[in-house]
Parts: sequence; C-alpha cells; structure tokens
Amino acid sequence: MPADKIQLPERMFHPKSIAVVGASSSAAETGWVKRLLDFGYKGEIYPINPKVKEIQGLRAYANICDAPDPIDYAILNVPARSTPQALRDCVAKRVKFVHCYTAGFSEDGNDEGKRLESEMTKMITGSRTRLLGPNCMGIYCPESGMTFSEDFPKAEGRIAVVSQSGAEASRLVLLCQDVNLYCSKVISYGNAADLDAPDFLEYLAQDTKTDIIAIYVEGVKDGPAFMSAVRKCRAKKPVVILGAGTTENGARAALSHTASVTWSQENWKAFFKQTGAIPALTTDETADIIQALTRIRKMSGQRVAIVGRGGGIGVVATDICERAGLKVPPFSKETQAKLGKIRPDAGAGLRNPVEPKLGMEGATEFYLRGLPIIDADTETDIILIQMAVDIYGGHGADLRQIMSESAYALCAAADSIKKPLAAAMFTGGRPETVLAAAAARDILTKAGIAVFTGVESAARAISRIPIAKP
Amino acid sequence: MPADKIQLPERMFHPKSIAVVGASSSAAETGWVKRLLDFGYKGEIYPINPKVKEIQGLRAYANICDAPDPIDYAILNVPARSTPQALRDCVAKRVKFVHCYTAGFSEDGNDEGKRLESEMTKMITGSRTRLLGPNCMGIYCPESGMTFSEDFPKAEGRIAVVSQSGAEASRLVLLCQDVNLYCSKVISYGNAADLDAPDFLEYLAQDTKTDIIAIYVEGVKDGPAFMSAVRKCRAKKPVVILGAGTTENGARAALSHTASVTWSQENWKAFFKQTGAIPALTTDETADIIQALTRIRKMSGQRVAIVGRGGGIGVVATDICERAGLKVPPFSKETQAKLGKIRPDAGAGLRNPVEPKLGMEGATEFYLRGLPIIDADTETDIILIQMAVDIYGGHGADLRQIMSESAYALCAAADSIKKPLAAAMFTGGRPETVLAAAAARDILTKAGIAVFTGVESAARAISRIPIAKP
Repeated sequence: MPADKIQLPERMFHPKSIAVVGASSSAAETGWVKRLLDFGYKGEIYPINPKVKEIQGLRAYANICDAPDPIDYAILNVPARSTPQALRDCVAKRVKFVHCYTAGFSEDGNDEGKRLESEMTKMITGSRTRLLGPNCMGIYCPESGMTFSEDFPKAEGRIAVVSQSGAEASRLVLLCQDVNLYCSKVISYGNAADLDAPDFLEYLAQDTKTDIIAIYVEGVKDGPAFMSAVRKCRAKKPVVILGAGTTENGARAALSHTASVTWSQENWKAFFKQTGAIPALTTDETADIIQALTRIRKMSGQRVAIVGRGGGIGVVATDICERAGLKVPPFSKETQAKLGKIRPDAGAGLRNPVEPKLGMEGATEFYLRGLPIIDADTETDIILIQMAVDIYGGHGADLRQIMSESAYALCAAADSIKKPLAAAMFTGGRPETVLAAAAARDILTKAGIAVFTGVESAARAISRIPIAKP
Repeated sequence: MPADKIQLPERMFHPKSIAVVGASSSAAETGWVKRLLDFGYKGEIYPINPKVKEIQGLRAYANICDAPDPIDYAILNVPARSTPQALRDCVAKRVKFVHCYTAGFSEDGNDEGKRLESEMTKMITGSRTRLLGPNCMGIYCPESGMTFSEDFPKAEGRIAVVSQSGAEASRLVLLCQDVNLYCSKVISYGNAADLDAPDFLEYLAQDTKTDIIAIYVEGVKDGPAFMSAVRKCRAKKPVVILGAGTTENGARAALSHTASVTWSQENWKAFFKQTGAIPALTTDETADIIQALTRIRKMSGQRVAIVGRGGGIGVVATDICERAGLKVPPFSKETQAKLGKIRPDAGAGLRNPVEPKLGMEGATEFYLRGLPIIDADTETDIILIQMAVDIYGGHGADLRQIMSESAYALCAAADSIKKPLAAAMFTGGRPETVLAAAAARDILTKAGIAVFTGVESAARAISRIPIAKP
C-alpha cells in the first residue's frame, strides 16, 4: 500500500487546521465553528463567510484562499449549487481533505444532483485534495477534538465506526456510551464520491488505537477493494457490518439516501463467509455485538448457564437462547448437588436455569455463593445473569441503593469467576426502575461486565462471538 | 356447557370471603392478608394461623373450619408437606376455590412431590372444591380488589391473562401498564392439577369485561379441550398465545417449572393455523401485540408509510418492516409532489420513508402538515412514525416540554387521520431522554396511539394484526 494511503487518513483525523466554508454567523445556532470550539479542537479554525468579519471570536475570511495558513481540512456548508466553486477554491488552496456536509447530489435522483457530484469528482482528480461525502456528517475523533454532534462524549475509546449514515453512526456512538464504551474514530461518509469505505478500512486495519471496527454500509462500489480491506482488518481485529438495504424497498430507500446500489442478502451471506466479518441487522444489534466482543471473555463453547429469578422467565430465556443457536443444558449432577446445599428450598430451580432467592438481596447472595459453583460446572461454557428488575427489582426510596449494592456484589463475584459472564437487565418503562437500573448498569459496565437490555439481545450477541480454539 | 362451569370462575374472581391459610404474623413482611387489605379487597378476610389471635387487625383462626362464615376462596401458604391436611380442611369447610400458592410438587420431579400433588387431586374429586395450582400466584382482578402483587395497578382494563407463570404474568401486567393498558382478570395457574387453561378460557370467552385474551402456556394436558376453548374465545375476541418450552432445553426447563410436557414448534404451528390465535415468542412481544390489537385501527393491507428523521435509520426501518413481512412501497407520484411542496429542501426524503425537518419541532410541523397528505396516499395502508429521540430528541432543560408538545401535536393530527397509525420511539439509555420520552409516551398512549420501543417490535406486532376484509 502506498504510504500516502495510510498517512492521509491520519491527517484527516488530526488536522492542524480546519476551515468552515459557509460558517454560520448566527449566535443562536450551534454551527460547525462553535461545535469544534466547544468540543476542544486544538488546531486553528478558519471561518469562511464573506458577509462578516468575525465568528465566535475568530477572524472570518471571505474566501478560503484568503486564509493566511495551509488548510488540512475544510468543511463545506454551502448550498449544493455553490459547492463546485467552493471545492474549486479548496483545490486551489491545496486543502488536503474536503468534507462536503451539504446534501442534494446524486442521492436526489435528478440530473442536476448527479451532474454536480460528477463535476466535483472531476475537479479533484489529479489534485492533492481528497473529498469526504457529499451528504455526510464527517469525522468524530475525541482524541483530536473533532465532532459532528455536541452530544458525543469527549472520552476516547477503541471502537472505530465507518458509516454511510450519519444518524446510524450517531445512534451507535450514544448506544455505546450508554454502556461506557467509547470510540477512537467515527467516519460518516455519505455518497462516497471519492473517499470510500476501503480507504478508511485500510487505515483502521493498522490503527493501534482501534480494537473493533463497526461498518454501516448501503452500497459497495468496489467489491474486491471492500473485501480486501475488510480482510486486512479481520487479520488484526473483529469487524461488525450492518449491510443495509437488503430488502426490495430497503434497496430503493438506500438509493434515495446515498445513491447506493445495495447488495442482496445472498451477496452479504457469501461475503461474511469469506471474510469472517460479523453480520448485524440493526444498529442496536451492532452495539450489542461490540459489547459482547469487548467484554465477554473467550468462549470455549456455546452452552449457557442461566441465573435469574422467575420460572417462566427462565423457560422463555432458554427458548430464546436455543433459538439463537446457543444451548442451555442441565448442570452436572455434582453442580446440582452443590447448588441444592445453598438453596435447599429451591426445588426444581437448580438444574439450569437456576433461581436465586427472591428480591435483589436473594440475587446478591447467589452471586457470591452460587456463581463459584456454576463456574466449576463442566456442562456449561458461559454464565448469563438475567435480571427481571421490572418485577424483582423492588421499589421505594432505597430502590437505587439496593440495585447498586447488588451490582457491586456481582462485580466482586465476577472478579473470581473464570467463565465468561454477561447480564441481561430488563426494566420495563417505570421511570423509578429505569433510573435505578441505569445506575446499576453503570456500575456493572464500568467494571467491564457486558449488560444487555434483554435476553433476546444478549443471546443474539453472544451467538455471534467466535468460539476460542482449544 | 354446564352452568356451573361459567358460574364457578365468576365467584373465583369475586369471592365474598377469602381465607389465608398460613397467614404471616410478621408485621415487617407483606403477606397475603396485608396485600389484600392494601389493594382494597372489599369482602371478608379470614387469617388462619394457630399461633396468633390477630393479624393486621383481623381476628385469626386456628383452623379454617373455625371460621364462622362460608369461605369462597382460600389461599394455601403452608409448607408443601402440610398442604394435604390444609386442603382436607378446606374440603370439609366446603370452600369453593383453593389457591395453592405453595410450590414443591410435581414440578420438583421427585416421587414425594408427585405423590403429594396426586393426593391433593384425589382429595377434591367429587367435592365442591376446585383447586387452583399448586405452585402459582393465583388471581389478580382489580374490580374485586384481588391481587398477588402490591405493584399491580388498581385501574381496571379489558385484557385477560391466563398464565402458567406468575412472573411472566406479572411482567405482562406491568408492560401493559407502561403504555396505559390495563387488565380485567389475570390467572396464574401453575401446575394445573385441577383447574386448567380451558376452564378459564370457557369463562373468558363470554366475559363481557374482557376484549383480548393473552395466554402463557407451558403444557397443554387436554389438547382437544384447549383447542375447543381457544376456538370459543376466537369466535368473539383475539387470543395471543406464548407457547413456551418449544426448544429442546426449553422443554426440559418447563418440566422443572410446572411439570409440563410442552408442544413442539410444529404442534403450535398447526394449532395457530387451526384456531386463528396469534403467536408470540416472548412476553414483550405479547404486550406489543396486545397494544397493536387494541390501538391500531383495522388495516386494509400491510403497506407501511414510514415517517421520521434519519436517512440511514429509514433504510434500516424499511429493511426491518420488509423482513417482518410488511411492505414499504414508494408513495404515489401525487403524494410525493404534495410532500415536495411542504418540504422543498427535502430532496430524496419524500418517497417513503419521508423525513420531517430536523428536531422535534420539525417532527411536530410535519405531523400537522404532512400526515394529512400521507393519509390520502393510495399506495400505503398504515403510518408508522419512527422517533429516534435518542439523537433527535434534543436536550437541556426544556427537553421534556418540547417532546410533550410534539406528542400533543401528533395526538391532534392523529385525530383527523383515517389510516391506522402507530409510533416507534427509541430512546437509548440516557436518563434525561428516557424520562422525557416516558412523558411523551404517556401522552400518546393515553390518547390511544400505540407506542412501541423500536421499529423491530412495532413491525413484528403490526405484522400480526389481521387484515380487514373489504
């Protein structure tokens, strides 16, 4: 791979200077300039706006060519019809990366939009300027202080997201934040008129700050390049892909969204088989798989031990796991006998699933005394704690404290458990329970325990984790 | 059907007197007596406990036979080994219904449990006493003030639940309450040693206070009776069934839970085809289907119009709907032209899915101006509003107000819309957003608009609604 292929994106995520072409002069709205300042971008910012002298305390320039210094990264925030001239100026200024935020190009499906996009592509051909977009949100990189949403966390993490959709990328960032997982680099790349998924993936494959790569893609323009790039990533780290637009009208919607020609389910199936990438059907599932890959220790098999209160809930949880391709076999006789000693009144609820005593206190006690027994069971490979806090969480003023104490007990117990372990916490919608559960989830996920919103999402994610070779 | 088959359950839900055999004398714990008193049960309560004179201000009796008046309903809360004697006393007292809360019978899988259960069944044979359970939570009937959980709402509704699992019944009651749906009668019936699902269903088929019946069943002891009872219900009202234990280990877990021999997926498939009952795979799905049946007007077809912000989110929502068996076709040219007039800058986002302007304000405006246009569209049958409030809900002090205002606008718009309509609101886990969304959901569901937690749950539920014949 040519050196510049690797170096270029590095500068894209860490530009020394950013120009905002069409910077908003309104004090009321949060424009690109204010967002970068607020988020802590440390490089130089050059607002470009011919109508004002100053934006957010920074000197504004009438044209990007008037900026006194070299520009690494320019954001085009001008109407679609004005973008060719703005891009022409960027090329003249030798801007390294132009992020065209503006929409209204090939995705509109009309001749004018296609013509404009094609004009832009021709304009950069042979130049030193690369184009990101059009019709995209650009870069989020907490390390360098770049963001496209003021809602994103400033914390740095080790997940990279390569997404044609800005909205799905945003949802993924926030869903990860909910469980204390953070990103290294996020790229929303829209129509991919120039820079495309393979360009980013070639870089992320060798990015030492990225452990997992999640991709949301509607159209693959260059199949072999995409496959080659995903394979390079896969050689070093897991890759999760949401291939959108696989149904008849999903494909039509994708054409309207990013002018993408999508792959069929069959195409994707073959692709996943050949690359070892992990498929996801929704962004929520992508977040679940990321959490499973990050926090669930290597599994030696797919036999699940289910721990949690509720006989019928246990039966349904077992069905859900088995439908997801996992197994929920009975514990060994030895394990059942040991469990019977600490729960002599449990009756049948000792065989897997196993039921702790009632309430969060019962759960807490079982984490400390029961989990070590299940850890030694020979018939199961992974422990799934199901917490129906909607009916067993308790209530009243001390709800939050009781649930938090139970979470700390599980953290303590998990420390000495060798088997991989995960939790499914379902809350229902009662605000009091939701808030107490959020506090408990925070404790658990900060301690590195995967917490899912239900058995269904947990089982789907667990079923996607590769099995460790003995 | 013999008259007593109908009359008996009526008295079961509205007993004039309840005896609690093994009533707790502890002031600290919430026992059956305190629960009934707190919940507003209006009949006579007779605590039975030989060790004390008074429980919760009520005179306690050493034995049920000492109670001065006839007993309609007795709750057995004594150890399993003491239940035969307690039941013998109930039979002598001519108690109409005995609810055996105690567990540790045939579900334990040991000979002693089986023997005890068989002894109890023999004891009531030929008597006037019917047995509910053992190993079950019994009755929740807000109209009469009977409950098995202090968390249940006192509000009466029109949903009946017949469930072998007390925990799944409880989850369903609370999931319904989250969306302002309430129950008429809930029966947790456990091992079904005597009274079984068909007994309750025969009654509920003609219960004028019940519009929808949800069933959670692990084992069907008498297939023809169950089918006949479900058919009688189906002739008058929709029936949703979660048949649990359909996988290998799910079946094993059900045997441990309620000593049930479960049906295979093939059995259920044939059953659903023959009865027209609606299948659900989880209790969350049962709640979703109940909401869809209650609140989504009759659909003349399964073509969905998707309204909501986010290009990629729209593509994924389309895929989800189509995978669930629905269709998301393009709007008619006329509809697209009309939408283009109110959203001239929307570009491609007018074809279905359709994108309102940014933020909750954009959504609000579209509900009022855009929904009437989609209502007149000839190519779609139902409107699904998808609200990605996790990224578009906004934030800050006025978050709750903005989301509530938008909800009120949707209620107003929905009033004049003829097409069936539903909303999918996904919040992520940020407490601030979750609480604001809960307030908005409350407004919407009180106005009779179905609100689901995501497009996946909405699409699954919508796909299960029967299509109205023209």
